[in-house]
Amino acid sequence: MIKVVCIGFGNVNQHLCRALQQSHQAEVVQIFSRSQPTLPEGLQDIPVTDDLSQLKEAQVYLLSVPDDAIAQLSKQLPRRSALVAHTSGSVELRQLSAKNRRGVFYPLQTFSKNRPVDFSKIPICIEAEMETDTLLLRQLGTALSNKVVSISSKERQTLHLAAVFVNNFTNHLYHISSTILEREALDFDLLKPLIEETAKKVMTLSPYGAQTGPARRNDQKTIEKHLHLLPEGTQKELYQLVTQAIQHTYGKKL
Amino acid sequence: MIKVVCIGFGNVNQHLCRALQQSHQAEVVQIFSRSQPTLPEGLQDIPVTDDLSQLKEAQVYLLSVPDDAIAQLSKQLPRRSALVAHTSGSVELRQLSAKNRRGVFYPLQTFSKNRPVDFSKIPICIEAEMETDTLLLRQLGTALSNKVVSISSKERQTLHLAAVFVNNFTNHLYHISSTILEREALDFDLLKPLIEETAKKVMTLSPYGAQTGPARRNDQKTIEKHLHLLPEGTQKELYQLVTQAIQHTYGKKL
Repeated sequence: MIKVVCIGFGNVNQHLCRALQQSHQAEVVQIFSRSQPTLPEGLQDIPVTDDLSQLKEAQVYLLSVPDDAIAQLSKQLPRRSALVAHTSGSVELRQLSAKNRRGVFYPLQTFSKNRPVDFSKIPICIEAEMETDTLLLRQLGTALSNKVVSISSKERQTLHLAAVFVNNFTNHLYHISSTILEREALDFDLLKPLIEETAKKVMTLSPYGAQTGPARRNDQKTIEKHLHLLPEGTQKELYQLVTQAIQHTYGKKL
Repeated sequence: MIKVVCIGFGNVNQHLCRALQQSHQAEVVQIFSRSQPTLPEGLQDIPVTDDLSQLKEAQVYLLSVPDDAIAQLSKQLPRRSALVAHTSGSVELRQLSAKNRRGVFYPLQTFSKNRPVDFSKIPICIEAEMETDTLLLRQLGTALSNKVVSISSKERQTLHLAAVFVNNFTNHLYHISSTILEREALDFDLLKPLIEETAKKVMTLSPYGAQTGPARRNDQKTIEKHLHLLPEGTQKELYQLVTQAIQHTYGKKL
C-alpha cells in the first residue's frame, strides 16, 4: 500500500485522489488545501490540513496546483525523505525544489468536475531522477492505469503541445460550429454523432488516412460557398488557414 | 416497402444501400453505376446497370455522386413520376433537374469504406418540394434512423459548414498532433483517450463550458513555450490564431 498525500485539491487531484482510494493499492493519508474543500462522498474520511508544517509522512506527495505555483510551493514543503511529484503536462521536473526527491506524475487526460473518468485507459506519464523513484511512480501509476510510460520533461512538453491541438483547439472548433448553427437556429445535437465518429475513426485509421471533405478533394466550389457563409473575422481566417493546411498536406501546389 | 434505386455506388450509397436492405422497410431494386462495382456480401443479389435507359421503376432514386456531377446526371435521368433525391450536404435542391420530382436525403455523418456505422443515431436531413414527398423521405429516413429532420437547402449548407469544422478541420488537428509527436518519436496512441474524452465531453457539456487549456486560462508562459516548440509555418500560425480566438471568446481584450 503506497501512502500518498495530495497537495492541492483541484480537478486533477480530486480525480486522482478518488481513483487512488478505489485502487486499494494506494492510500491517500492526507489532503493539503488552503481552501478548506468540502470532500466528496467516499473521501470524507481523509484528513485535510491547510498547514504545511502538519504534513503527514507518506511515500509520495502529489503536487497538483496551478503551473506557476509549483516551484514556489515545492520550496515551502518541509524537507522529508520523500518523493514530491507534480502532475503538470508542461512544467519541467527541475522546476521542483531539490530539497526533496523530485518526480512527475502526469495523467494525460482532460478532467472536469463531476465527470467521472475511467483511469484504466489514461496514459500516466512518469519521470523521476532516481530509478527507485521511477519504480515507485510506476507502481503508483499501475494502481490506476494499464498504460504507464516513462517520459522526459522535454517529451512531456511535446506531448502537452500535441494535447492542446487535439483537446483545447478541437473543443474550440466544436464551439465555432455551435455558433455557426446558432445563427440559423439549428440544433448542435445534430452534429454529435459526427463528432463522436470523427474521434472514433482515428482509433483505427491514421488521421492522415481519415481526412475527407472539400479541402481534401480540392472542391473549390464548396470552399467558396462556405467562405461566403462566414462573416469576416477569425472564423473565416481560420477556415482559410486550415483549408490551405489540408491542401498543402495532400500535395496541392499553393 | 419503399422501392429504391441507388444511382452511384460510392461511400455514401454503399452504406445507405446496406442499411436500407437491412431495414426490411425498403428494398433496393437496382444500382446504377458506371464502374461495374463488385457488390459486397449481402448486396450481391441487387441488379446493377450502367445504362440510364434501363432504370427500373422505383419510388425513390437516391442520387449519390460527386457534388459537381449532380445537376448534369439529374438531367440525364429518364422522366418518370418519381422522386429523385440527392444525398449531398452542400448542393441545393434546385440544382436537380425539374424533369422529375426533387428531394434531398442527406445523412449527416462521415462514411469510410469498410467501416460500419450505426445508422440509428445518424441525423437524416430531408427536403422536398411537395408535402407527400417530404412524407415519403421521412418514411425512408425513419427506416434507418431515429432522427429525421426537415431542413431547407440554406440550413443544410450551414449545417455542412459546421460539419466541416467538427469533422474535417478537427481531423486535421489530429493530423498536426501526430506530426508533432512524430518529430519526437512519441506514440500517437498516447493521445487517443484524450481525443475520445474531448468528443464525449460535448455530448453533455456545451463546447463553451468544456473549454480548458492555456489559452482559456490566459497562461502566457505555457503559450510561449508551445510557440517556441513549433517550427515557423502553418502549425505555428494556426496555434496563434486559435489561441487568440479562444482568448477573444473568453473575454480577454486583444
